[in-house]
Amino acid sequence: MTTDTLTRRMDFPGLVTAAGKPWHYLDSGATAQKPHAVLDATDRAMGADYATVHRGVYARSAEMTLAFEAARRTIAGFIGGQEDELVFTRGATEAINLVAATWGVENLRAGDRILLSVLEHHSNIVPWQLLRDRTGVAIDVCPLTPDGQIDLDAAERMLTPQHKLVAFAHVSNVLGSVLDARRAADLAHGVGAKFLLDGCQAVPRMTVDVAALDCDFYAFSAHKLYGPTGIGALWARKDILAAMPPYQGGGSMIDRVTFERTTYAPAPQRFEAGTPAIVEAIAFAAAVDYVSAIGLNVIEQHEHALVARLRDALRGMNDVTLFGPDHSAGIVSFAMDGVHPHDLGTILDEENVAIRAGHHCAQPLMDHLGVPATARASFGLYSDDSDIDALLRGIERTRRIFG
Amino acid sequence: MTTDTLTRRMDFPGLVTAAGKPWHYLDSGATAQKPHAVLDATDRAMGADYATVHRGVYARSAEMTLAFEAARRTIAGFIGGQEDELVFTRGATEAINLVAATWGVENLRAGDRILLSVLEHHSNIVPWQLLRDRTGVAIDVCPLTPDGQIDLDAAERMLTPQHKLVAFAHVSNVLGSVLDARRAADLAHGVGAKFLLDGCQAVPRMTVDVAALDCDFYAFSAHKLYGPTGIGALWARKDILAAMPPYQGGGSMIDRVTFERTTYAPAPQRFEAGTPAIVEAIAFAAAVDYVSAIGLNVIEQHEHALVARLRDALRGMNDVTLFGPDHSAGIVSFAMDGVHPHDLGTILDEENVAIRAGHHCAQPLMDHLGVPATARASFGLYSDDSDIDALLRGIERTRRIFG
Repeated sequence: MTTDTLTRRMDFPGLVTAAGKPWHYLDSGATAQKPHAVLDATDRAMGADYATVHRGVYARSAEMTLAFEAARRTIAGFIGGQEDELVFTRGATEAINLVAATWGVENLRAGDRILLSVLEHHSNIVPWQLLRDRTGVAIDVCPLTPDGQIDLDAAERMLTPQHKLVAFAHVSNVLGSVLDARRAADLAHGVGAKFLLDGCQAVPRMTVDVAALDCDFYAFSAHKLYGPTGIGALWARKDILAAMPPYQGGGSMIDRVTFERTTYAPAPQRFEAGTPAIVEAIAFAAAVDYVSAIGLNVIEQHEHALVARLRDALRGMNDVTLFGPDHSAGIVSFAMDGVHPHDLGTILDEENVAIRAGHHCAQPLMDHLGVPATARASFGLYSDDSDIDALLRGIERTRRIFG
Repeated sequence: MTTDTLTRRMDFPGLVTAAGKPWHYLDSGATAQKPHAVLDATDRAMGADYATVHRGVYARSAEMTLAFEAARRTIAGFIGGQEDELVFTRGATEAINLVAATWGVENLRAGDRILLSVLEHHSNIVPWQLLRDRTGVAIDVCPLTPDGQIDLDAAERMLTPQHKLVAFAHVSNVLGSVLDARRAADLAHGVGAKFLLDGCQAVPRMTVDVAALDCDFYAFSAHKLYGPTGIGALWARKDILAAMPPYQGGGSMIDRVTFERTTYAPAPQRFEAGTPAIVEAIAFAAAVDYVSAIGLNVIEQHEHALVARLRDALRGMNDVTLFGPDHSAGIVSFAMDGVHPHDLGTILDEENVAIRAGHHCAQPLMDHLGVPATARASFGLYSDDSDIDALLRGIERTRRIFG
């Protein structure tokens, strides 16, 4: 355990059990723990600084509006975008649904095709199926390479001028596979399709620059990025966002309302009906500031080293099947012969080790892997060797119990 | 100032200026300040207790799931509903949009009609206009009585068997007018229409019982109810909710996903795609517990007394126009001759008095009143005579400046 990691662990009040012992939290892929900086920003914004935004004529509301829009600028800049390209959503799931229900309904027709991949999270499958029900668009599914990466050679062969959208996970939430996003963008654009990245698992684990990736849509949530629940973001290229019809109707997204006819505000406000998640936006920016101060390159290297050590250890076990590529980002899925992942998870819990066991909202990938579920250990910036040691001890104990 | 009110003010860290002086916050209709109980619940849920819900195999996630579902039960019970009838949304705006995009799209066709009223907030107008664009349904507008209440005699004359929905504000956010909701429900049901109430301004100000009101949909937000931003709720009658198609697609709302065909979870989960606003749901319940402990009948009487005193004082001023009915719930809109409401708001701000000036997201009502904007003072459970005194002093000072 390095001093740096120890310092970081102390920033996270959630990394201690009720009994005051270290909690070996290996479920950051589901949701990350929050640092004091995020809790403190939340407390201030809900308490001494609290006021509504965009409406009040009094100073505290004006200050809150500045803080809210500064948060938008911080979060957009974090992924290399501009503030007027960033829409606050409830989370990444809503961000993808918003694209499907606005850009998708406006631009896609029966005969058009969408390319997804086998490893997508349900949040990047079901919105397109709902759009299929509404428009008659067809969905194609890109296969994976043997080690569990989206097979871009196959994508290249599959893509046609009928494809209007390619939507891929930047990092797989089950396998940790990292997409060659720039090549995927070039392939999509080569046939005139737009390119959407589900960035939920990427933004906490690596530097993301939407300009360098040349994507058209980028969706991510705050709660996996050490930020609050209840908020996420959709980044979209300015010209695309400007042309998208409204999503939800209500206050703040309008220009002028009469019962006969309503005109709408420009983006991004057009997509943010109602009082926004004010406190959450400010805390989201605090989370971005926190990880930016550490450096995403530092976090990436830290998690890569942990993944390498864990995969090496698991590879040496005859009764363990390891999924996904060796060079994966912070996430390791595996299975133990004769032990259901849920049983493993329950035994590990007794040792204060938290992993996830299940289909990880990726049932088509489970079907592809031929398993109903996997065990998944996923790291965060606060994870360290003690977490891996505890996991390996727990696997050993499980083996004794079931052996 | 009663001892009770003083005690309550101390519960709210937002009711103090940066300089440590009392802040006369008369904008609770826009958003309410939060008590320590809500801040503390947030801090615990984001910190020591934090984990995801509905997925983890470890104990802390199971405990968080219990807390999350207990919050749903608390909030549903608060309005006389049951937990499986309550859907968490981003806010009231999303709740109404959800009804329009699911129940509305499934059940309404060209030739059908919706009845709204002149005093509706944009959040109860624009979603129906978006539905009109999609389905060809027609929108009718119920007029108001001279003192600014929804004219239910007119509604009775206007309703026809073509009407499939009546959607009214339970309490007007501009005028404070309280709807005779049960009579409106009976009128709607009399022609076979469903009945939706926008309850944003009602739930913080009076006891609400959806069973006694006999409504079909009830929408409200947490942030106006002394709770967090980023969350609200849709209550819907069980049989209606059960028949509604999904809204957003993603994790948690599915039963089984394949690329060919996806089946969905039962309500309310079917309408809650993605990781929910976990922390916000728990803090929402803390807010409900806080106001329930005081008693909504106590809060209602408290705000009625403040409204009566303020209206009496304003009625005595020759240069002030008073809008809305005398018996209004916690909200008073007015205008000063020769003073734009924004200027009044700015001068009041210098006296540490916060009111709202503007169209209050109710432009059709402004058109009806023949003004571009009103000044609005809205009370909360923490408001007291000192707030009214400060407001009246500020009006006097404004009169001197403009006089």
